[in-house]
Formats: sequence, structure tokens, C-alpha cells
Amino acid sequence: MLDDAQFHGMFFADVLGIYDVYGGNGPALSSASQIPILDVSLMVGAMAAATTNLSFGLTASTTYENPYALARKFATLDHITNGRVGWNIVTSYLQSAAESFGLDQQVEHDERYAMANEFLEVVYKLLEDSWEDDAVIADPASAIYTRPEKVHKINHSGWQVLQMCWANLVHPSPQRTPFLLQAGASKAGKTFAATHAEAMFLPGMVPEKTREIVESMKALLRENGRSEGSMRFIAGIFIVVDETDEKAQAKFEDLLQYADLEGTASLFGGWSGTDLSQFSDDEDFAFKGPPAIQSMINTWTATVPGTAGLKWTKRRVLQELAVSGAHPRAIGNAQTVADIMQRWVDRAGVDGFNISYATTPGTFEDLIEHLWPELRRRGVLQEKYAGHSMRENYLQDGEGARVRKGHPAGSEHRS
Amino acid sequence: MLDDAQFHGMFFADVLGIYDVYGGNGPALSSASQIPILDVSLMVGAMAAATTNLSFGLTASTTYENPYALARKFATLDHITNGRVGWNIVTSYLQSAAESFGLDQQVEHDERYAMANEFLEVVYKLLEDSWEDDAVIADPASAIYTRPEKVHKINHSGWQVLQMCWANLVHPSPQRTPFLLQAGASKAGKTFAATHAEAMFLPGMVPEKTREIVESMKALLRENGRSEGSMRFIAGIFIVVDETDEKAQAKFEDLLQYADLEGTASLFGGWSGTDLSQFSDDEDFAFKGPPAIQSMINTWTATVPGTAGLKWTKRRVLQELAVSGAHPRAIGNAQTVADIMQRWVDRAGVDGFNISYATTPGTFEDLIEHLWPELRRRGVLQEKYAGHSMRENYLQDGEGARVRKGHPAGSEHRS
Repeated sequence: MLDDAQFHGMFFADVLGIYDVYGGNGPALSSASQIPILDVSLMVGAMAAATTNLSFGLTASTTYENPYALARKFATLDHITNGRVGWNIVTSYLQSAAESFGLDQQVEHDERYAMANEFLEVVYKLLEDSWEDDAVIADPASAIYTRPEKVHKINHSGWQVLQMCWANLVHPSPQRTPFLLQAGASKAGKTFAATHAEAMFLPGMVPEKTREIVESMKALLRENGRSEGSMRFIAGIFIVVDETDEKAQAKFEDLLQYADLEGTASLFGGWSGTDLSQFSDDEDFAFKGPPAIQSMINTWTATVPGTAGLKWTKRRVLQELAVSGAHPRAIGNAQTVADIMQRWVDRAGVDGFNISYATTPGTFEDLIEHLWPELRRRGVLQEKYAGHSMRENYLQDGEGARVRKGHPAGSEHRS
Repeated sequence: MLDDAQFHGMFFADVLGIYDVYGGNGPALSSASQIPILDVSLMVGAMAAATTNLSFGLTASTTYENPYALARKFATLDHITNGRVGWNIVTSYLQSAAESFGLDQQVEHDERYAMANEFLEVVYKLLEDSWEDDAVIADPASAIYTRPEKVHKINHSGWQVLQMCWANLVHPSPQRTPFLLQAGASKAGKTFAATHAEAMFLPGMVPEKTREIVESMKALLRENGRSEGSMRFIAGIFIVVDETDEKAQAKFEDLLQYADLEGTASLFGGWSGTDLSQFSDDEDFAFKGPPAIQSMINTWTATVPGTAGLKWTKRRVLQELAVSGAHPRAIGNAQTVADIMQRWVDRAGVDGFNISYATTPGTFEDLIEHLWPELRRRGVLQEKYAGHSMRENYLQDGEGARVRKGHPAGSEHRS
């Protein structure tokens, strides 16, 4: 369905621990807030077999994975999807994950990014340098599968664990390096993204504020010798669309009743570090309460019509957060929603959207039925995939499946 | 096809390094001897979607994987296959793998097994103890997915890396612990298998010698408080079957021409540590040459009809090894092959076979066409899967998908 509707990709978040800031781990478990969480990389093979163009963005951690095993994993996935795999690079932030992987304390934030840089250097060597393009000839006449002189042991020292390394276990895949996604909002995160990322998930509820991030990222890209077109900016958005604005609003209001308040408070605690358990459900959060909540209320009030008179109790805040996430919203008929999206493109300078869903089935069927015809009419809906690989479909610059010039994965950086 | 033909499972070997004893790594690469090697665990999802009963035996290393990530991996695979996954536990023996994972030298053999024991202890705690059976209720009325009081943090200290740990990230799967396979031939390996393995791949070319291993393993099982029926003994076998003995022999002779001598010498070097590059292709290995080769020739001559007059040049030895592997052989019509298999069951006491193939398509189609009717006639072919899980189908004792009493994964060992 997503494939037929020309979606670019599916994105899968991942965590390696459990949310335990709010009320211990009870609320996360009872509400199934990212726990249990299966390893989705093991399901991509089946999803790839059922689709032809849809890409798969997978989250993997540079703090808890091994670079040799990770290079093999993504090379395998890139082969079996024919180039339709992306890696959302994270450094992992949950204390419970650190404990599960044998650390007393998490690695400190900026040091995690330093480790991530070196991790990527090793992964690039394995994926881009260890096998030359014409290493595999699979020639029955000479009975030669791989030409040994075209496969090179990589040597790396400096990484605190990995001192030396053989070639990647897997021959070159369509993209070699998976399409690289990142969502760093901190200074270290942005610097990292400007070096490595090819698409960036942007935070923010107000287009003009998000534009500041986009502009600063473009400046960083130029500093790094990368073209602006080598990075795609993606805004999160929550959409409820129906035939009329009223029907869409009613659908949204209806969804609120299904919100799991405890689970949402648990997720919010994990993201923000703010424990809401001290407040009653009826606590009025307008103009008081935790700063993280204040800023959400302010943007909801400023950007969503009809919310000015609303009483922002803790209950209502959690309900809205549960349904729409901490994302900009577009609720209304196709024109209303398309206008909001257009405003994000125009004012924030984003290239596309990561659409979160409220129900499945439900959200995506609604999008295809109601919104797609309007986007098509406006000429902004992708009608044809630009290529077979995730990189071609996201960058749409006709430059093929491999990393672009100036990207550190390019082997010109390691001659 | 394998599913329809009532095969119990498919087994996937794996290595994390490259064979480099014979002539460096050139021969392994040119002959594609287990390099490149994709990560097959990433393909099980697609294979499971295309089958209903076939099980998947995957190789994973206790030396180079992380127990927390591995528990998540197998729990995920057990969910998406509905209990059809097995773990062939290896400790990894290639120096090149050690180097790729950041070690100067391999961990010493017996120490690897000590590490493996502790690795499994952690994995059992995660898979068997951290979630109670009735933890997940997914109850819409109470909006409770998991009952927090039924999920337990596991604590482990002693393992050189892992000091402490949260619960598994994945809720209980049909088997919880994957069906455990092992192929340890050393003393440490056998002790390990007698503790953990539920099926064992047996070495040996002579049934009577293999029986000694089976008997010694059964004694070890009893010592460990495990029933003899809680372990299945599996012999490797290479089969060429056709309408007549002559046709099968001719098919085998025809296959020899496709042998890659360099690649086989490379694989043999990796297994045995013996470098054959010092010998010419015409070197006569009968009664001289490396001991590892001698013992193969002796068993081939003793057990395979029509080989008594053969000149065992290095070329011929490598050709035969390339085609049949270091396995017992059964070459002939259905009666001949069934008789040889029956002899292994009677004299060695094995429960089943791991059949290696020469070509695909080819070998398995031949088996189903020619051999299956004869095995069915003798009443020794499985006609119906015993259950939905790998454990039920291998143990066939009506005791369900979970580990058997007396197995260290059973939580009675960790009260």
C-alpha cells in the first residue's frame, strides 16, 4: 500500500532500554511504550520481499553495536533490499540501556559523539574501501568468484576497542554505505549531522524556528565542503485528514479518549527527563507547570485554530501528546492539511515529512484517500520513484546510489 | 519445497573471519569459500513468511556477540517464525575474526567455552526469567499491555563484561530459548554440549566410532540430570541418489570436475590447520601425506565401494572433499542410500541427518524424487510435523515448545 502510494520510506525508531523516569518502569510496561520492542532489522527481509520501492530507515546505535558486525548487517540488508536501506544513527541516551550492555554509567553525551565519529570512520572503511567495485566477477570460465587483489584488509587504530580489522565480510551492495539519517539537536549532534547525515529529522513546532536550524545546517554543510543538495531536511508531522475540517476535528477529538496517560507520561519522562507524577490530572498547566510542557502548550495555542479557549489540564496535555506526539499538526480537510504542509515547506525550508500515525489501519488509508489527490493536484506529490535505491529516491539529483562527493564515506578522503 | 517434503529444518553455518591458512586469503576469496558471507539471520523473516513448518538453525558466536543483543535477536526471530528458530552455538575459532573484533589474539579454546557458559547463563536469565508467562495480557478494557509486576530485572555479575542487566527487550516467544544446537568435538566442547545442547552435529566417517561419541554423550547427559531423549544426535551425510547405482556414481564422477581445488585446500586449511600448498596436484596421498588426509582416505577406502583401486592424488582427494565435504557418503539408488542411512541409525545410534548438497537446484529435488518414496516405504520418513516449534519437531516427545526438565535454561535452576 505504502509502496503503491509512492511513499519514500518507512522509518523505525528503536531504543535499547526502558523509560523509567516517570514512576519507575511500570507505566512504560503497562502501556507498551516501546517495550516490548522487537528487533525490526530482522523483519526488513520480509518487508522488502513484499515491496519494490519503499525504503526502510533503521535505527542503530554507535554506542552499543560493534562496527564490524554493523557493517555486515547493513551490507546484507542493502543487498536483500536492492539498496533500499537507511541507517538512523543514534548514540543512545537511556541509562537502562547502558546498564544492560554492561556499563555502570552511560558514556557522557559529547564523548558518545566522538566515539560515533570514529565508529563511522571504521564502518566507511569496511563498506567503501575494503572491496573494490570490480572485486566480484563470479566468472564460471576462470572459476574465479572474487579477485583477491581487489579486496583489502583495512587497518584502523585509535578506536578504544577496535585496533585492526579484516575486510568486510560482505561484497559491495548497491549503496555500499546505507543512506544516513540523523536527528541531532545538540551542538555535538548538529556537527555530527553536518558531517555524516544525508537526511535529518528536524525538531520544532514553529516553522520559523525550524528554518533557523535548516539555515545553520546548510552553513555547516558548506563549511564541510558538502553541497546543500546532499542533505534532506525532514519535519515530523501528525496529520488527521477527512472530507471536511469538522469531520477531521471530530476524528481527532475521538482519538483523545484512547490516550494512555500513564504511558505518555512515561515516554515524556524518558524524552525530557521531567517527571510529571507530582501533578494531579486536573492540574492546569497553562502559564505554569514544567517548562517543557509550557513550550508545547504555547505552540499548540499559537498554531492550532480553536485551541485558544481550551483548559490545558495535565490530562488534556497528555491526551494531545499521546495522540499527536511532540510534532506539528495538520488537522482538517485536504486543503487545510496541504496548506499547513506547504507552509512548512515555504517557511521552514523542509524537503519532506515524517508522518506519524494515530491508528493503523486508519491514518495511511486516510492520507491516500483524502490528501493524496490534493497534493497531486498541486504537483507536489512524487509520482514516480527517482531510482531503485533509498539514496536516489531521497536526494533526487540523478547522481546514483552511492554517497555524494564531499561526504566522508567517499573514499577520496582516505587515499 | 523443503517444507512440503517434511524436512525438519535448514541449517546455516557461519564464520566471522576468513580462511587464511592455505596460501593467505587469495584462494578463499577467488573460490568464494564462505566469503562473501551475508548475515543470514536477516533473511529468516522472508524465509519464514514463505514456509509454515520448516525450522531455521542459525549459527551465532558467544565470543563476539553481546548477550543482551543476542537474546533480543533470538526472541524476535522466535516470534516472527512462530517458534521455528534454533541457535547453533559456536565460540569461533578463526584468528582473522578475533582481529576484526578488536582482539590481538584469539581467546584460548577452553577459556572461550568458559565464557560461553556464562554467556548462556545470562541469555537464559533474559529469555526464561525476566518475563513471566502471563506478563503480557494486552487487555483493551484495562488498557494494560504488560503487567509490570510480572517483568523482572535480571542481575548478573561475574561475566567479565556484563555486570548487570535489565529485562529482555522482547516478551516471551513460543520457545523462549531457541532450540540449541552444538557441534563440539573437543573435551570442553562435549562437556558444554552435554550441558546446553538439544541437538548435536556429530563428526566421524565410521558409524562405530561415532557411536562411541553418542554413548559418551548419553553418559554425560545422565550425569547432568538430563534424559537421553532431551538430545538429538545428527550425523552429516552427503547423498547422491538416482534411479540406479550406476547413474548415481556417474553423477558423482561428473560433479568432481567442478571442484575448486584451491578453494577446497583453503577451507581444509581453515578446518584442520594443515597447509597443503607444499604438495603438487599429482602427489600420491595414499599411505603418506598429512595425517588429516590419511584418515579421510582410509575411511573412504573402507566405506565406499569401488574406491579400493583408486589412486589418491592430492587432486583427487581435493575433488572428493570439495564435492562431498568431510562427511560420510551415500551414493547410489534409493535402496543403496537408504541402507547406508539405516546403518548409521543402527550402528551409530544417530537420530537424523544433516544433508549437505552438491548443487541447488539438484540435490534436494533428487532426494525428494528418488529417496523419499523408499524412506516412506520403510516407515522412517516423517509424514507429519510433530508440532509448530523447532523443539517439538526435533524432540518429538509431546512435551511442548519450551526447554525440557533438567536443562539449565529451565528456571528451576535459578530460583
